[in-house]
Amino acid sequence: MRMVDLIEKKVQGLELTEEEIKYIVDEFVNGDMPDYQMSAFMMAVVFNGMTEKETADLTMAMMYSGDIIDLSDIKGIKVDKHSTGGVGDTTTLVVAPLVAACGGSVAKMSGRGLGHTGGTLDKLESIPGVNIEQPMERFKEIVNNIGVAVIGQTGNLVPADKKMYALRDVTGTVGSIPLIATSIMSKKLAAGSDAIVLDVKTGSGAFMQTVEDAQKLAHLMVQIGQLVNRQCVAVITDMNQPLGMAIGNALEVREAVELLSGKIEKGDPLYEVCMLLGTHMLILSKIATSEEEARKKLEEALYSGAGLKKLQQMIAAEGGDASYICLERIDELCNVRRKLEIYPSEKGYISSIRAERIGTAAQMLGAGRATKEDKIDPAVGLVMNKRLGDEVSPDTPLCTMYVNDDTALEAAINTFRSAIEISQNKPEYRPMIYDIVRE
Amino acid sequence: MRMVDLIEKKVQGLELTEEEIKYIVDEFVNGDMPDYQMSAFMMAVVFNGMTEKETADLTMAMMYSGDIIDLSDIKGIKVDKHSTGGVGDTTTLVVAPLVAACGGSVAKMSGRGLGHTGGTLDKLESIPGVNIEQPMERFKEIVNNIGVAVIGQTGNLVPADKKMYALRDVTGTVGSIPLIATSIMSKKLAAGSDAIVLDVKTGSGAFMQTVEDAQKLAHLMVQIGQLVNRQCVAVITDMNQPLGMAIGNALEVREAVELLSGKIEKGDPLYEVCMLLGTHMLILSKIATSEEEARKKLEEALYSGAGLKKLQQMIAAEGGDASYICLERIDELCNVRRKLEIYPSEKGYISSIRAERIGTAAQMLGAGRATKEDKIDPAVGLVMNKRLGDEVSPDTPLCTMYVNDDTALEAAINTFRSAIEISQNKPEYRPMIYDIVRE
Repeated sequence: MRMVDLIEKKVQGLELTEEEIKYIVDEFVNGDMPDYQMSAFMMAVVFNGMTEKETADLTMAMMYSGDIIDLSDIKGIKVDKHSTGGVGDTTTLVVAPLVAACGGSVAKMSGRGLGHTGGTLDKLESIPGVNIEQPMERFKEIVNNIGVAVIGQTGNLVPADKKMYALRDVTGTVGSIPLIATSIMSKKLAAGSDAIVLDVKTGSGAFMQTVEDAQKLAHLMVQIGQLVNRQCVAVITDMNQPLGMAIGNALEVREAVELLSGKIEKGDPLYEVCMLLGTHMLILSKIATSEEEARKKLEEALYSGAGLKKLQQMIAAEGGDASYICLERIDELCNVRRKLEIYPSEKGYISSIRAERIGTAAQMLGAGRATKEDKIDPAVGLVMNKRLGDEVSPDTPLCTMYVNDDTALEAAINTFRSAIEISQNKPEYRPMIYDIVRE
Repeated sequence: MRMVDLIEKKVQGLELTEEEIKYIVDEFVNGDMPDYQMSAFMMAVVFNGMTEKETADLTMAMMYSGDIIDLSDIKGIKVDKHSTGGVGDTTTLVVAPLVAACGGSVAKMSGRGLGHTGGTLDKLESIPGVNIEQPMERFKEIVNNIGVAVIGQTGNLVPADKKMYALRDVTGTVGSIPLIATSIMSKKLAAGSDAIVLDVKTGSGAFMQTVEDAQKLAHLMVQIGQLVNRQCVAVITDMNQPLGMAIGNALEVREAVELLSGKIEKGDPLYEVCMLLGTHMLILSKIATSEEEARKKLEEALYSGAGLKKLQQMIAAEGGDASYICLERIDELCNVRRKLEIYPSEKGYISSIRAERIGTAAQMLGAGRATKEDKIDPAVGLVMNKRLGDEVSPDTPLCTMYVNDDTALEAAINTFRSAIEISQNKPEYRPMIYDIVRE
């Protein structure tokens, strides 16, 4: 097999065989396929796509390029969730404990934030003492003991994806739906859970700008999961504005604590997306047989305080000081040098919020990384005061910025302002949840 | 400017500016743009193409990436020819001397063969003593003295193309019409001639499989030339079989000598394509004002022996033993250990000849290189005995193979046989010349 012939086959729009796809991935991972051939191949995929079979074959080849986590020591059905990336999305810190409180097993490996998106690991590390690097045995022990653990990736998981993603990031091949699906699913499958709920974001702040593209990606991922006998459901949710009000690490932990303390009302987008994800996690875990039953269990866990307690237990099990994880003390993690309120310059309605710019503004304040090497400040970020469709006037702030370092403050303010559009007419209502994809 | 943004701009189908294209080429040549970004960019061009302006800007940026040959020391209009590559195409060795014999100035830098295509430099080197590496001053002196010199590339001509072509060759991006046009034209323009006749091959043995694609490429190249005030004409000729009967280095020199000695009849494809190219070279050189006049001059040069004499003079000027360049002695260069005739297995008509496989068969005999490092045997190759549409029977050979080394003989025979298709019905007539493109 010559690599150039396989690239040309893809250029011509022909279907590659399982053997050919495995050859491409293996040669790339072992260094015998140079980056310039892989980037050309992936660019050909951007234009010509991949068949369902090719996508599944690629996922498998990538998944088997490294370690596969064996979670069979953990009792029951292990359930995972994944979001395609958003701003102000702190669902994991809410849903994982709630599902555990209902009797589920959530053994989750999470990631860090880059650019405008946040990462659960960074949020966890804003709590003093938390160590997200846990040995595999300890990880399984925590899940067996309390039903939930969220840690950093352990072992050499899907090295093919690490190499491919690094290349996609700099070669304009990030946007391909089959490449996104294989990247996500190879990691999720290698991480070993039996069931996976996927949250596919759509809108201005998401990779998938249209609901149609989000549906394509969702179907593709669910089909890949089913091919290897994993239970998969995808939900398609809105990312035309940040999901929660808080963007920043400790700020998002605080919002999760508020939600788990019953302080966020039903109908709130973060609340509803958490309930939606939790519902399908409980159903796939066979803890509930209907959406109604699942939601009832989740609300019991929430309003009884059982969910918050699970979060506290998990933090403690990972070495963190769980005494912060309550309404009384959580503010201590959000202490900053100064808070700055940003006001609109005119009256009207918020007609557009560009979520990725809000995320970038928070990153500029120090809440995120522009490059992998950047340090983050756990306390800083911003808290939205208004949402899409809200009426605004110059006497009410749009948000509060939590600031320690003024270096990029002006740039952050400008970026924030450029994210908000105000019009004189109330914009149309946008649904929060667009679709549930089961096959 | 970030390279990934320029790649994404091309992925989105937007037009790149002159500045952006120059940035891509400069960064690539100086090593600041890694190969994996260039291959991704070129793959995006394969799918999204380039506008005429982008193609011209890319050609200019590539041309100025290295030395530009200044031929102003040579008197008169300097005329060049280029073929997009074929099998059995020995036109340069015929046309360049003929045009010089008519008073033209042909200062031509030629290339080597690779894979199934031959190269004029390899053919010249089959003549004892010829040194294709001539200093620039000597090159110009030869052209001033005798009107024609064909040598190897001198100086650092279009390093951008060298790097880009090496990458295209292994990343499935060879077939893009704008990339082919920029590759050819950047080199031709940097080589300094005032006028260029382009021979765009079409058919099974050519990059351009259809006449439509050949026309696109031809128009693009002519337009690029005109943008920088070079006179350009492109002819579109058939490559559904080898052009001449000989495939191999000395064998092709012999065919050129035969043609220049009046031994090949009018109507023969090699003869006709040589006349066509010569006609347009004379017209662009302002030596003839009409095709009729040009052809008359060329035929006079041919049948008077003036063309053959120019070839002899050029060989001698480049250090070669010109005494071989005549019907009496040329056979001495084609001495091989044995000659092998290949017969058809059935009666019928030749309905298809896959030229690239004929070229590959000759390469296997030692006439060409599989990789740049391979040595070639100047005497070996094959001489066709039949052409497309000819009636054949098992008692008349299809070709004679000139063999020194038997190592790959069986593979060469099999490849040759797989190139020839015999049917019971006489195939339709195919034109030799499809189009003349002047703008």
